[in-house]
Amino acid sequence: MKNFKLHLFLVFFICLALRLQADDGYRLWLRYDQISDPEILENYQANLRTIAFLGEGEIFKTAENELLKGLNGLLTQKTQTVSTQTEADIIVGSIGEDFSFLSTVADENPDNKKEEAFIIEGFEGKTYILGTDERGVLYGVFHFLRHLQLQKPIEDIRISQAPKLKLRMLNHWDNLDGTVERGYAGFSIWNWHQLPEFIDKRYIEYARANASIGINATAVTNVNANSLIFREDYLEKAAALADVFRPYGIKLFLTARFSSPIELGKLATADPMDPKVQQWWKEKTAELYEKIPDFGGFLVKANSEGQPGPQEYGRTHAEGANLLADALAPFGGVVIWRAFVYSEEEPVDRAKQAYDEFMALDGQFRENVMVQVKNGPIDFQPREPIHPLFGAMRKTPVMMEFQVTKEYLGQGTHLVGLSNMYEEILQTDTYQFGENSTVAKVLDGSLTNQKLTGMAGVSNIGTSRNWTGNLFAQADWFAYGKMAWNPNSKSDDIFEEWAKLTFGHEEQVVQTVSSLLDRSYEACVKYMTPIGLHHIMGPGHHFGPGPWVSEMSRADWTSVYYHKADSEGLGFDRTVTGSNALEQYHPMLAAKYENMETCPLPFLLWFHHVPWDHELSTGNSLWMQLVREYYEGAEIVSHMKEDWENLQGMVDEERFEHVLMHLEIQEKEAKWWRDACLLYFQQFSKMEIPADWEQPEHDLDYYESLTFPYSPGIRPRW
Amino acid sequence: MKNFKLHLFLVFFICLALRLQADDGYRLWLRYDQISDPEILENYQANLRTIAFLGEGEIFKTAENELLKGLNGLLTQKTQTVSTQTEADIIVGSIGEDFSFLSTVADENPDNKKEEAFIIEGFEGKTYILGTDERGVLYGVFHFLRHLQLQKPIEDIRISQAPKLKLRMLNHWDNLDGTVERGYAGFSIWNWHQLPEFIDKRYIEYARANASIGINATAVTNVNANSLIFREDYLEKAAALADVFRPYGIKLFLTARFSSPIELGKLATADPMDPKVQQWWKEKTAELYEKIPDFGGFLVKANSEGQPGPQEYGRTHAEGANLLADALAPFGGVVIWRAFVYSEEEPVDRAKQAYDEFMALDGQFRENVMVQVKNGPIDFQPREPIHPLFGAMRKTPVMMEFQVTKEYLGQGTHLVGLSNMYEEILQTDTYQFGENSTVAKVLDGSLTNQKLTGMAGVSNIGTSRNWTGNLFAQADWFAYGKMAWNPNSKSDDIFEEWAKLTFGHEEQVVQTVSSLLDRSYEACVKYMTPIGLHHIMGPGHHFGPGPWVSEMSRADWTSVYYHKADSEGLGFDRTVTGSNALEQYHPMLAAKYENMETCPLPFLLWFHHVPWDHELSTGNSLWMQLVREYYEGAEIVSHMKEDWENLQGMVDEERFEHVLMHLEIQEKEAKWWRDACLLYFQQFSKMEIPADWEQPEHDLDYYESLTFPYSPGIRPRW
Repeated sequence: MKNFKLHLFLVFFICLALRLQADDGYRLWLRYDQISDPEILENYQANLRTIAFLGEGEIFKTAENELLKGLNGLLTQKTQTVSTQTEADIIVGSIGEDFSFLSTVADENPDNKKEEAFIIEGFEGKTYILGTDERGVLYGVFHFLRHLQLQKPIEDIRISQAPKLKLRMLNHWDNLDGTVERGYAGFSIWNWHQLPEFIDKRYIEYARANASIGINATAVTNVNANSLIFREDYLEKAAALADVFRPYGIKLFLTARFSSPIELGKLATADPMDPKVQQWWKEKTAELYEKIPDFGGFLVKANSEGQPGPQEYGRTHAEGANLLADALAPFGGVVIWRAFVYSEEEPVDRAKQAYDEFMALDGQFRENVMVQVKNGPIDFQPREPIHPLFGAMRKTPVMMEFQVTKEYLGQGTHLVGLSNMYEEILQTDTYQFGENSTVAKVLDGSLTNQKLTGMAGVSNIGTSRNWTGNLFAQADWFAYGKMAWNPNSKSDDIFEEWAKLTFGHEEQVVQTVSSLLDRSYEACVKYMTPIGLHHIMGPGHHFGPGPWVSEMSRADWTSVYYHKADSEGLGFDRTVTGSNALEQYHPMLAAKYENMETCPLPFLLWFHHVPWDHELSTGNSLWMQLVREYYEGAEIVSHMKEDWENLQGMVDEERFEHVLMHLEIQEKEAKWWRDACLLYFQQFSKMEIPADWEQPEHDLDYYESLTFPYSPGIRPRW
Repeated sequence: MKNFKLHLFLVFFICLALRLQADDGYRLWLRYDQISDPEILENYQANLRTIAFLGEGEIFKTAENELLKGLNGLLTQKTQTVSTQTEADIIVGSIGEDFSFLSTVADENPDNKKEEAFIIEGFEGKTYILGTDERGVLYGVFHFLRHLQLQKPIEDIRISQAPKLKLRMLNHWDNLDGTVERGYAGFSIWNWHQLPEFIDKRYIEYARANASIGINATAVTNVNANSLIFREDYLEKAAALADVFRPYGIKLFLTARFSSPIELGKLATADPMDPKVQQWWKEKTAELYEKIPDFGGFLVKANSEGQPGPQEYGRTHAEGANLLADALAPFGGVVIWRAFVYSEEEPVDRAKQAYDEFMALDGQFRENVMVQVKNGPIDFQPREPIHPLFGAMRKTPVMMEFQVTKEYLGQGTHLVGLSNMYEEILQTDTYQFGENSTVAKVLDGSLTNQKLTGMAGVSNIGTSRNWTGNLFAQADWFAYGKMAWNPNSKSDDIFEEWAKLTFGHEEQVVQTVSSLLDRSYEACVKYMTPIGLHHIMGPGHHFGPGPWVSEMSRADWTSVYYHKADSEGLGFDRTVTGSNALEQYHPMLAAKYENMETCPLPFLLWFHHVPWDHELSTGNSLWMQLVREYYEGAEIVSHMKEDWENLQGMVDEERFEHVLMHLEIQEKEAKWWRDACLLYFQQFSKMEIPADWEQPEHDLDYYESLTFPYSPGIRPRW
């Protein structure tokens, strides 16, 4: 008998060891391992033994399974399902009069009447998890499990939440051949070839992970779209995905190529005013809804970067969007029309074009059209001021488009916590409805009275076993979900929560992980594009520095177009003496930027052409400020690496090594950005890098000579 | 205390449950789970407690780690390392006089003196695992662990093995952009972009899996080669891979693009007789060996399917190969030159061209050149007769090239056990050195007295979590390794061994899995290309049936070139009345095929144009035989699916569902092949499918109209 016990011990430790050794990051933040604090565990075990599930439906069933699975893992005990409330420690059901004894139900909280809302309350020794609908229940269950993972008390738990935005969406820039435009985590997880029959287990885990952070919609195809997705066999493939997503409360969207009636329908035109074109879209949409009754709608990139669109037929974006909106309306579908457009002819500052184009159309879109606007006016640069359309466009629902993938922020290898960027943008005041008209408030519809509200994140998910390639990029996916649920979320909370969910509760680990995430965004901006520089990366693949890029098929794809370095100074004059892009902002916001002396340093070179020797608020000349920021950015990365190294032995070896290798690349590449950019700009400034600082390893010719023909995430070649 | 024990129990079962639920196939055949038979476990536990490792070196250390890891897992007990033989239950060391008391050492077994050989012997209560060198030790350790996984007795163990072939190699057709030509398991596992800094854990697991089945070489780049691999930064990336492979006894090879001196060296020519070209290759090779001291050599596809080669300069394949051989010779490197060539002008039957080209060059190659020949004369068709070069080319070492990936055998979704195909080819008698001159004997050098011997398998490995996409495709990788180690291996043994290693010892499971593998190859040949048909698949991607393909850029890429269906009959006359490809075989082998009446049915239409109503040895007309075989092939797949369904509950749910979904696709596609091909050929035969048999679901126009623009595994577009 003693031997037997010993034996069990051994098995136990081997199981643990296997788990510790083999942490490949696949489980994301959904790690239902035993609660590590013994007292808390004992408390949970004693008080969470039985559950009554009072509800039904496909999504409710998902919540049921998830709660049982979660509790079994976290409490390492078998949770019992019971049929009456009396027997139950946990009651899962619907918010309503039956539960009016709960303070969260009884109070006047308007959230309790919104869709997808939930409450969690402890009352007389029982825990109630109630939703306004099935999705609400599911979100409540995930929230409760997270509450336990975070080892918070359950006695006086009292939580009431409703999402601030209705559409919380991922955009996959995934191509039908399995490549991903701007994807740095391997290739597409969608195996279109083997759909609809073969359902990869990852599809289910994907839906589950998204549901756990409140994401309720996904567009699985690239905005540089392919009309093949509308061919009957592909619609069946898409329907199989929708079937997987449905029990997790996630609606499927597809990208619509505007010329599909020509390519697939064999029509002579895609003119939105042509009745045959209108008929084609109506029939195709009806076919779609026959296969996918809860289909979300179309996401469209038109007349931008070579994509076909209504302007080819002399029609406006509104006329194009309305064509699709009319086809979708009978089924309750939505058109999401991207405002990321700029002319082929480059007549004016690219930063101004989307605003000019779309402001003129405000009021002309159908009710079921949303306009999706990138956070800044150029294109996901490391740091941009807010897009001027936020708050300005009022008669049309405006959706945020954030990057989660890191096209311009270190791609697959750099640790950069995007949450700080999301927060910075969302908390920026547009002033469009008076002071405190933050972007967050514009998005949630409270200022504009919009019924449709939403946020889209360009996915960073790929075939990598840990989903995001770079382990810390999981934190961006997580943060994006949190921000879409509540755009007023605080990054600091998100970082700490993710750290605990992902790495456990050891204090040094939590602090280091949170701090790495917190410092990293500013560091990246500094070693790539400090003081408002932008769009100075390598051509095409956007990997590495490329301030010297001057020969592209169009001027506004070059770097020199944006930094305008010359012997006098550096930066893009967007004031009244320059492109006057500033005029697109509310005067109160514009006033913050328009004066070179008072413009915040992070946006100085975005809005001003500044002389090299101009003394800035820091007391440094522009040149020295530039040098200092580049060096500081690289230095922070070195510190980040050291901090991580100090966690050796506190984090399982596999994840420790994985992160360390990426930090080593980041350290090397931060210096590469610093040295290449400073050497390049030095040609114009003719000023020095202090002699006692680490000097560039190579000369400028070397950096300019580097080529990366197979850098990942590039466009497909068709 | 009782509670505590209960607690342990629960943890134990949850660990087990987690493992059962989450079997994603990643561990391949290296599943070191607890031995399931309690008696055998107890015996192993009692007799394998302590190990003395008597040796050193990087590979020896790998063997040491693997043995400890394996025993800890299989025996669920901590194995002790001891320093003396007296204390040890297991002794790991070198074959030699010290161990002359062992019968395997004392006997006259010549294997005991060969490189990479090992013995395992039980003697006076101890188990000896000894190698002639470090690799031998590593292979011995893996063999011993497999012995335990198979739950075989250890008391009288007495095993002595040496590999029959020296070079046991994988060929990856992986491109530098991450795509894989003819890859159906996702994309390339080599993340060139993040090398050399980021070492994916899979690289290590890859090396380990290969070492476990005796593979000792790998060419990681596509034979449709890219000269960029020779750029300095890429050589460093390659060196990082070589560093990972080295401790597992695996040598790195690279594919050499013949025009590299032009593309990378900026020379005006790649003429092998040009001194500057010779110098370029010498310097590049020296640079390579500086970074990778044990570099294996170059694998080359030249003057074939658009690849550059020596013939552009009026030089022969031998002159081209010798150019590289001279550069490699000082470092002990080898050139592997592929015989898969056919002229751009299609002057004669494509099946004849490689033989014509290479027989003329026999004797002209340097000593460090091997010629790598595909198993059959066309191109990895579901079934081909052997390539006529085997046994005929005698003055040059000839290597086998087998497919492990299934370009023409169902790609990513069909269960087809390739081992039967390997065995069929290897056991075919070439008669070149008298009777019983099998291909296996030609390859092992015993007939030709060649010092260099080898086999290459075109890898089926990709980013899929289970490595091969289709779970049963792991068996092909495993079988390939076994056949390369010993070309006289028996498929039946391999199937059973793989079944046990992968799915455990339950009898019905082992029998079903083995039987699926055993029946599947013949089934696939029948539903795709029965009676010797070949090359009738979809164009380009090679997915699905395409007997109607007639318009390609060259005739010998079409289907009609190969099946030659007309109103009279079907098949390619390769006898003296036709292309006379038969003359390339030894007369005794040719005699088996040359008569339409006696030619074995599997090769009938390969060698003969047979009238539709011709009565075959089965008593059926050709047409009825064709119909019967197509139907039988599809029927076997349906039976395979049923047999698998009967394993529900005996195999973990994840793998059960995974395999079932693929079998459902296979069943559907088998019928697709059957119906499309029979409807097509019926146009010529004008004969009927029996009316009471299941009729084709669609008409021929439908099948011909299907297109698959993003079918996986296609060529890169550059």
